Amino acid sequence: MKTAQLTTPALLVDAAGLEANLRTMGRALLGDRLRPHVKAHKCTALAARQAAQGHTRFTCATTAEMEGMARAGLGEDLLLANEVADATRLGALAREGARVTVAVDSEETTAAAARAGVPEVLIDVNVGLPRCGCRAEDAGRLAERARAAGLTVRGVMGYEGHIVGLEDRGQRTEMLRDSMARLVLASDQVGGDVISAGGTGTYDINTWATEIQAGSYALMDTAYAKLGLPFVQALTVLSTVISVSDGWVVADCGLKALGMDHGNPSVEGAEVWFCSDEHLTFVPQARLRVGERIRVLPAHVDPTVAYHEHLHVVDGDEVTERWDVDLRGW
Amino acid sequence: MKTAQLTTPALLVDAAGLEANLRTMGRALLGDRLRPHVKAHKCTALAARQAAQGHTRFTCATTAEMEGMARAGLGEDLLLANEVADATRLGALAREGARVTVAVDSEETTAAAARAGVPEVLIDVNVGLPRCGCRAEDAGRLAERARAAGLTVRGVMGYEGHIVGLEDRGQRTEMLRDSMARLVLASDQVGGDVISAGGTGTYDINTWATEIQAGSYALMDTAYAKLGLPFVQALTVLSTVISVSDGWVVADCGLKALGMDHGNPSVEGAEVWFCSDEHLTFVPQARLRVGERIRVLPAHVDPTVAYHEHLHVVDGDEVTERWDVDLRGW
Repeated sequence: MKTAQLTTPALLVDAAGLEANLRTMGRALLGDRLRPHVKAHKCTALAARQAAQGHTRFTCATTAEMEGMARAGLGEDLLLANEVADATRLGALAREGARVTVAVDSEETTAAAARAGVPEVLIDVNVGLPRCGCRAEDAGRLAERARAAGLTVRGVMGYEGHIVGLEDRGQRTEMLRDSMARLVLASDQVGGDVISAGGTGTYDINTWATEIQAGSYALMDTAYAKLGLPFVQALTVLSTVISVSDGWVVADCGLKALGMDHGNPSVEGAEVWFCSDEHLTFVPQARLRVGERIRVLPAHVDPTVAYHEHLHVVDGDEVTERWDVDLRGW
Repeated sequence: MKTAQLTTPALLVDAAGLEANLRTMGRALLGDRLRPHVKAHKCTALAARQAAQGHTRFTCATTAEMEGMARAGLGEDLLLANEVADATRLGALAREGARVTVAVDSEETTAAAARAGVPEVLIDVNVGLPRCGCRAEDAGRLAERARAAGLTVRGVMGYEGHIVGLEDRGQRTEMLRDSMARLVLASDQVGGDVISAGGTGTYDINTWATEIQAGSYALMDTAYAKLGLPFVQALTVLSTVISVSDGWVVADCGLKALGMDHGNPSVEGAEVWFCSDEHLTFVPQARLRVGERIRVLPAHVDPTVAYHEHLHVVDGDEVTERWDVDLRGW
């Protein structure tokens, strides 16, 4: 099948780019040193490729992602790197044979895990991002509570989300040191052998973590592209030109086909003006005609993929595989 | 079923609010004076409610919306208010018995409609928004081309998307006059009895259009709420508090559950800091505990709904109906 036969907008994954990204990461972080985050692609077929690189432990952001991964036979060691107030479905998943670990940062979430029969937890520590995670100095006490409730505490996690996107590598490195000092302090108190942290922006500088939760590296986006990492943008949105005016062109790729929280997408050799629900208004350098196809580069991979049903793997204009985005929803 | 039993994040539609909005609009614009835009809710069950108000002609933004509406028995008069380079599926839909009209703004899109057997078109005219639409002075010539190709030209359309969201009613009214002057000029040249235009922000001041394409009025969002229109915010995202820290709280409603192009969502009585993929970090005035539910007000209804599979109609904490968001995709 050719890309020309696809209904647009459609997500394309450049096969060679994806393969290069997976290989580069696989060489940098061997086996369990990487715990790929599936929230970036929400696709078990892509996760299977990551597993084939030796990364068989995965990170998830939602219970639905945990369930989907287990269903796809990728439940060897699943971490829900997020708090849940109700762990019932996770407990059921564990009873069905998946290895299930959930992050906890409070007595309530610890109790929820114990009540539901989730066997293992990580103590989630705030490492500077104002989001989830307990204070480092409270981590030991929470671990005790968890153990008293019958839970196995595998260690700690802490996501440096305020650092991973900083464009300056020196600044990332410096801030990371302070951030991870908190996590190491917590780890000393908590025990266990896991220190889970990191993202694509810190995958090679976070040497404190025992495992890195990177996800975006596989497909990439224009936000991460600014960091000068050795990963290529393998994800584009195929779009069709539907209108040509004096001064601008419109393609059928709007804000329902793109995550917009990081701003507008990009089009090579063009200036993007704005997105509407189903439109992208832009000014190309070269003349375009109605019916021509363009490839749009998303600003943020995660919420872009979450709008689509399929990832089309392409080699040039040839569609070689179609993968379901089967980890959507909650 | 109670809202407490729903998996979060979940879209809630306040039954009374929706009903009030539908009634208010139904009284302001009788029957075919409104051609509700389904892109705002992507839900045929909600469209059926609009039809019950007497609005049986609908506006769509995608071919998939056209197909879904016809499948649901709402194909009496469907307008695709958007250009398509390939009208094959629209032609098939017309042959299956739906009344199908498509917007055209170029020789290419006109030829595509004729080739595919789409019987009727509107000439799409640029009325000031740099997006689709031909120049008003070219509309007559394009209509001639369309008729020569065997198409029935029902009239013109022109979307004043640069005006509908302006907060100042006086400014909206003034700019609308100039904008619609272009459309009336085009209508004089094109003929036909349809002048299709308008949105929720201009539904009561656009007296030039014969039919108004409003959609957001049914559910509303915080962006349109600023305009002081007589419609209430009937749409919220039900979310669960998953983490409480000194100074902020986190709920499980992130940027994959919300359209972010209009910025952050709102939480009544709280200051919203930021959204992550699956998190909303905010500062509530009142104390919240892990497990409590909150209702988040989206900034932009259309891309928010497009992330969800269902709309849950609620009367207080009682879920009275679950509607499929069945017009997603392309």
